[in-house]
Amino acid sequence: MTIPSEMKALLLTGDGYTRTPSGSALEAMEPYLERGTVAVPTPGPSQVLIKVSLASINPSDVAFIKGQYGQPRVKGRPAGFEGVGTVAATGDEPYAASLAGKRIAFATGLSNWGAWADYSIAEAAACIPLLDTVKDEDGAAMIVNPITAIAMFDIVKQEGEKAFIMTAGASQLCKLIAGLAREEGFRPIVTVRRDEQIPLLKEIGAAHVLNEKAPDFQATLREVIKAEQPRIFLDAVTGPLASTIFNAMPKRARWIIYGKLDAEATVIREPGQLIFQHKHIEGFWLSEWMRQFRDRRGPAILEAQKRFSDRRWSTDVTAVVPLDEAMAKVPAELAKPNGKVFIKP
Amino acid sequence: MTIPSEMKALLLTGDGYTRTPSGSALEAMEPYLERGTVAVPTPGPSQVLIKVSLASINPSDVAFIKGQYGQPRVKGRPAGFEGVGTVAATGDEPYAASLAGKRIAFATGLSNWGAWADYSIAEAAACIPLLDTVKDEDGAAMIVNPITAIAMFDIVKQEGEKAFIMTAGASQLCKLIAGLAREEGFRPIVTVRRDEQIPLLKEIGAAHVLNEKAPDFQATLREVIKAEQPRIFLDAVTGPLASTIFNAMPKRARWIIYGKLDAEATVIREPGQLIFQHKHIEGFWLSEWMRQFRDRRGPAILEAQKRFSDRRWSTDVTAVVPLDEAMAKVPAELAKPNGKVFIKP
Repeated sequence: MTIPSEMKALLLTGDGYTRTPSGSALEAMEPYLERGTVAVPTPGPSQVLIKVSLASINPSDVAFIKGQYGQPRVKGRPAGFEGVGTVAATGDEPYAASLAGKRIAFATGLSNWGAWADYSIAEAAACIPLLDTVKDEDGAAMIVNPITAIAMFDIVKQEGEKAFIMTAGASQLCKLIAGLAREEGFRPIVTVRRDEQIPLLKEIGAAHVLNEKAPDFQATLREVIKAEQPRIFLDAVTGPLASTIFNAMPKRARWIIYGKLDAEATVIREPGQLIFQHKHIEGFWLSEWMRQFRDRRGPAILEAQKRFSDRRWSTDVTAVVPLDEAMAKVPAELAKPNGKVFIKP
Repeated sequence: MTIPSEMKALLLTGDGYTRTPSGSALEAMEPYLERGTVAVPTPGPSQVLIKVSLASINPSDVAFIKGQYGQPRVKGRPAGFEGVGTVAATGDEPYAASLAGKRIAFATGLSNWGAWADYSIAEAAACIPLLDTVKDEDGAAMIVNPITAIAMFDIVKQEGEKAFIMTAGASQLCKLIAGLAREEGFRPIVTVRRDEQIPLLKEIGAAHVLNEKAPDFQATLREVIKAEQPRIFLDAVTGPLASTIFNAMPKRARWIIYGKLDAEATVIREPGQLIFQHKHIEGFWLSEWMRQFRDRRGPAILEAQKRFSDRRWSTDVTAVVPLDEAMAKVPAELAKPNGKVFIKP
């Protein structure tokens, strides 16, 4: 494969973190990105260079380009946390070298060199060789949501209690988890922001769907927690809502933070609960999970590919936007509900 | 041993938790306790009845009687979390029965029936048969501070990093831990509130002593953390100080909360650190530690008794106050620095 010296990409215009956090919507691309040309990067020993076929846009990408994600931006580098493509060059380490020429799903959280570009760099450990039966759209959106869903539900299963809680219940990730949970007889308790979201989530597999804006939310929450005794809390939002939920949970509850959609302060309302009720607060990051639980990684990846191959899972596509048109078109496509927006180099 | 039907005790006048939290000093006994007569309690199957020889007063007792500790008060029950005495009656379970007639140190956190009384009830699992070489004053103050010190330092040793952080550095507990740490070449970083406390703590074994009130505290803290890379944070205070320290700590830091001296809100300043830096927030409670780490319990208890027997450790006694005089005399004795106040039935 001939590799050019230069390539097109959507490049970060900001460095580090923002000082003026804003909401989770992407009102426009210009403040954060520019379409530009950069040198095609060279993979390190444990990395691969990927010719990108398709890259997805996740809420974490929007947070990242705005400088309000947990990883710092590097000005002038491409954005984009995941995609699908073909390995065009590799580093010298054996596992990286073994990926040469393969079609892979990849994540760039560890390499910090994004997927919204003609070529991208990923750690070999963050690449998944794909079965031919997995479509590009499913491969490009397979890591951040589907594998995370399987990994998080794995934590729930390890803990053993049938009931567990999720915030941002209407997210793609929570819907995937709710579906997995129903298949195995688990009982998700999810929060949403609008009553219209309730019927679909119940249909998918949620045992209880609570509208966090409802006037009786706190009373209902306490009642449901008392009846279901959930121990695991998978939290995408932090802030006052998450504090309230964790505070109401029973002994030995684990608050597992994986997102920070709410910019408000996150308070531990009763630190005494950590002492006397053995509650814990921790985080979840897929890269860390994969590193720490190597024996669970393989089965999770296989499970996701099987589900996409036999169509139990499929990715709802809102739009596939050419990279050249992304600056103008992405915000409006992202504003549409219920599907994924892709960038095609 | 003949057991009377009634006994004298210092009884809680409040139920549950206070609605008006105040500081950690005990300005007077009357708002919280009264000297009274109650029936001598009967031990449950896993419990023992102890004829109390001597009971100690800890900061956690003061917080508890004021209704600002993590456990709820029960009006009309005796207060007092630890003491020394002789087992006067036991429940039917074998371990409880095996303690009959023995001189023991005991803790009442699990039984919730206090030690400031002629007789007290403790779970057998919270009783420690004493060597004859351990004095009553040392036995009555052996669990809450010395065994906790050994248990917490055990966590530091398990983690492996030589440096670790403690708030409330001038407390008896932190001094014990600093001494243990010095013996094994560990490097405690401690915070205090007054410059006068610095020389003594350095002498005892602290590698760094930071005055949290100093104008350059934050800069010094960052510098020391950068140089020492501490992973464990043993925290007695919570609130803004603890939030600042945890926020400045490196990847994989564990914030272990065992006290809540600061009534201000405890904020997780950057929840993203839990996600991407694998930081954790948890609690420490000796009762829980003993239950969870049964194999470490025996050696910790033996270690404490050896240290008191050969006088490497000894308890500084400020006063031994007869139970009949406690209502009037305890607050003034507690206000004196650097020693322990005991109640003698």
